[in-house]
Amino acid sequence: MIRRPPRSTPKPSSAASDVYKRQALTARAFGASRIYLSNPDSRVIKSVEEVVDKFGGDFSIESTSNPKKVVSSSNLLIVHLTMFGLPIDTKVEDIITEGRDILFIVGAEKVPAWVFELSDYNIAIGNQPHSEVAALAIAMNKLYPNSYNTEFDGKLSVIPSATHREMIDSS
Amino acid sequence: MIRRPPRSTPKPSSAASDVYKRQALTARAFGASRIYLSNPDSRVIKSVEEVVDKFGGDFSIESTSNPKKVVSSSNLLIVHLTMFGLPIDTKVEDIITEGRDILFIVGAEKVPAWVFELSDYNIAIGNQPHSEVAALAIAMNKLYPNSYNTEFDGKLSVIPSATHREMIDSS
Repeated sequence: MIRRPPRSTPKPSSAASDVYKRQALTARAFGASRIYLSNPDSRVIKSVEEVVDKFGGDFSIESTSNPKKVVSSSNLLIVHLTMFGLPIDTKVEDIITEGRDILFIVGAEKVPAWVFELSDYNIAIGNQPHSEVAALAIAMNKLYPNSYNTEFDGKLSVIPSATHREMIDSS
Repeated sequence: MIRRPPRSTPKPSSAASDVYKRQALTARAFGASRIYLSNPDSRVIKSVEEVVDKFGGDFSIESTSNPKKVVSSSNLLIVHLTMFGLPIDTKVEDIITEGRDILFIVGAEKVPAWVFELSDYNIAIGNQPHSEVAALAIAMNKLYPNSYNTEFDGKLSVIPSATHREMIDSS
């Protein structure tokens, strides 16, 4: 009898997957209706769909192998968040005045050069390296204040508490 | 000759490391002076110290094997960010009125129960699951508006641009 080697332990979720998942959940919690992933990642899609199933809302997640086409064929206002961009506080009013729905572009890795060219605004949340998720949260909060307090009417909902964890499950 | 099996590919940085790194960099960019990691993680410390070396500032990063002691012996105001807490907008004025320096607690994994008990405030940035990094960014922005625009006087600095990446290196 030949013993098979032990199976390898489950591969940890990659750092990039984890960042994409958090971007997607932040986008949802702060009021976005959809996210496109430029790298198909079934792990991200599955975990985001599980959150939507449990916590509600109409948020959808899609993969695309051609992000440039998504951007160039979109009639949304394209706002790219990058530490190299102009300070958000100098552009918030302009963006709000446009009165258009927004497609944000954020990278977990370095974005290709066309992103700068095709974006209507290249915007920085400070010019220091930090986090794409932090940048997305601040940008959405500045453009859609308090959207993170939206009620989602899901099966699971949190009872806010000063002292402990509490959720109700209405399923 | 016995052929050795191919070396395994480099282990990707774990998802948790990546989240800690982003928390640390967000804390720094939004004005914090120090972060404590409850799990020693040389990868996180190294990459954060590299950023501080290049981009400047006095930010320090420390590991602790006893986070409970750090919290219980601290004379800072303890603010725990959790989706189960009270809405931040109902507590911002109270926290600012306290006029004290703040120790934020954020988890990449589930935090132990004592965190709720020892915290002065258990605060939610919305009661939906999203991202600890997003929560930290919003909380710091509400309590220290525009701190992310602090100049750090490092060797590397970004020239904000509407169109492209530009950095100067004064080293």
